[in-house]
Amino acid sequence: MTCRTASDVAKATRDMVLRGAPLIGCAAAFGLALAARRGRLRDVLAAAPLLRAARPTAVNLSHALDRMLVAARSGPEGTLGRRLAAAAEDYFREDLAANARMARLGARLLKKGSRVLTHCNAGALATAGIGTAVGVIRAGFLAGRVAHVYPCETRPYLQGSRLTLWELMRAGVPATLITDNMAAHLMKTERVDAVVVGSDRIAANADVCNKIGTYGLAVLARHHGIPFYVAAPSSTVDLSTPTGARIPIEERSEDEVLEVAGSPIAPRGARARHFAFDVTPHELVTAIVTERGVVAPADGPHLKRMLSSPRP
Amino acid sequence: MTCRTASDVAKATRDMVLRGAPLIGCAAAFGLALAARRGRLRDVLAAAPLLRAARPTAVNLSHALDRMLVAARSGPEGTLGRRLAAAAEDYFREDLAANARMARLGARLLKKGSRVLTHCNAGALATAGIGTAVGVIRAGFLAGRVAHVYPCETRPYLQGSRLTLWELMRAGVPATLITDNMAAHLMKTERVDAVVVGSDRIAANADVCNKIGTYGLAVLARHHGIPFYVAAPSSTVDLSTPTGARIPIEERSEDEVLEVAGSPIAPRGARARHFAFDVTPHELVTAIVTERGVVAPADGPHLKRMLSSPRP
Repeated sequence: MTCRTASDVAKATRDMVLRGAPLIGCAAAFGLALAARRGRLRDVLAAAPLLRAARPTAVNLSHALDRMLVAARSGPEGTLGRRLAAAAEDYFREDLAANARMARLGARLLKKGSRVLTHCNAGALATAGIGTAVGVIRAGFLAGRVAHVYPCETRPYLQGSRLTLWELMRAGVPATLITDNMAAHLMKTERVDAVVVGSDRIAANADVCNKIGTYGLAVLARHHGIPFYVAAPSSTVDLSTPTGARIPIEERSEDEVLEVAGSPIAPRGARARHFAFDVTPHELVTAIVTERGVVAPADGPHLKRMLSSPRP
Repeated sequence: MTCRTASDVAKATRDMVLRGAPLIGCAAAFGLALAARRGRLRDVLAAAPLLRAARPTAVNLSHALDRMLVAARSGPEGTLGRRLAAAAEDYFREDLAANARMARLGARLLKKGSRVLTHCNAGALATAGIGTAVGVIRAGFLAGRVAHVYPCETRPYLQGSRLTLWELMRAGVPATLITDNMAAHLMKTERVDAVVVGSDRIAANADVCNKIGTYGLAVLARHHGIPFYVAAPSSTVDLSTPTGARIPIEERSEDEVLEVAGSPIAPRGARARHFAFDVTPHELVTAIVTERGVVAPADGPHLKRMLSSPRP
């Protein structure tokens, strides 16, 4: 799909043509660059709320728009188009570099020959680079630290089976798909050494919002004594949200639960809930990996300190 | 599908045309009655292992066959057909009565206006009567003790969305479908008062084998302080299996995970695991409801005592 206007980008984001918190941020940055092409600040100011409303949960979206709006206001309209195109390119390159750095930092947390469980898709299809959680896994695989990966299929959208498994297969990482409800049995009866996931928003106290099912995996990991890691760029951390309780959880159409690939899986007239995300309390998170460092969020203030310090 | 021979019944069981541990037991009883129609004991003895091998996990299958074989040997070949037809009818009527009694005993455990979560299908489509877990829920609904039910869809076979939801809708019980990975979020953010599930086999120490995903729900229920109930006829209890570790867990075809309703959901060449069942340790089970009484399995020996006592 080719987006020629900011409103195309907003629609693609809303309809999940593109998804993944970091990628939504990059796309929003380019969306504003598109709005700036005619060199009119008011086009940019009108497009920003449209893009911001496209998805409520991923904070990277707001983060990207705020940076672009600062760039938009920092010069004459004559250079607006050029400046915003450059700012979007910068945002994109930073996400790429953040991915590479997270991958390196995160892989070090895994012991040699680990069997890793992941959820949803926090990979190349969710970011500008090789991904957050999948980036950690791929770097870990190259370093001999990851021996096998279990992506959970991630109902209802099946990002695990459709996206993560595809990325892992292309990268040559040994991977075996499981349904979401097999994770507990796998943790109990076979070796799982780590759970690694991405995030759509991290609150100031290090509570982690991510794809529905993540919280359950964190409870199961704790029950089985398995470390639970979150990999996300620092733009995912929202210091203005004090705790996870303040993060709005998007409820999407129940049809997405009642159908799989367009085929109904429930009786006609059935009702369903479709929570798209959940929140994992920081107590259940072993460490958060960002491009700026690794934080053990059981100690909340560390996160704030790391992000308030000057960029490396 | 009409079964005219024991081998038809074995095939229907193997292919999951019929499923649900109690129903598999009833069908096996009728399967041996079909084998007895020509009045030859050797036909019955040949059919029994065929039926027994059809599914490895549900102990009700062996239980039914053992009772039928005793009946087969307890008279002349001249009356074999008639005796086995009567024995199968008896087995069927007992399952019906056990359902009704479990429903009554189980409903009493629920407090007024409960919101109940269930998994897989332990209903009319899994038994001869109104079901085990679903029987408890339906009786609870009629008694004002159940206000709302959340069936988990139960991947990969979707027994929750295809069977349990259908039964609940027909019975007029308010029900809302969720994907398996939404259970934890629901328990944390909305009220869930009880989890009620069925079982395919219960070990002597009260470890409970049931559909994949049950163990994870038990861990989540414990984490959220929610009681976890199992409803199953006493024929599900296998005193010859000391603990859950000895129960063979059926692994089914990976295609059943890689496809939904015949459509592929993963890349070509992908690999998957398909554990069909899991085992919930008795420590996580609040109570087991059988037609012979309710047992708190944290105290294992109680189960043995109840089942060794004469039938009521």
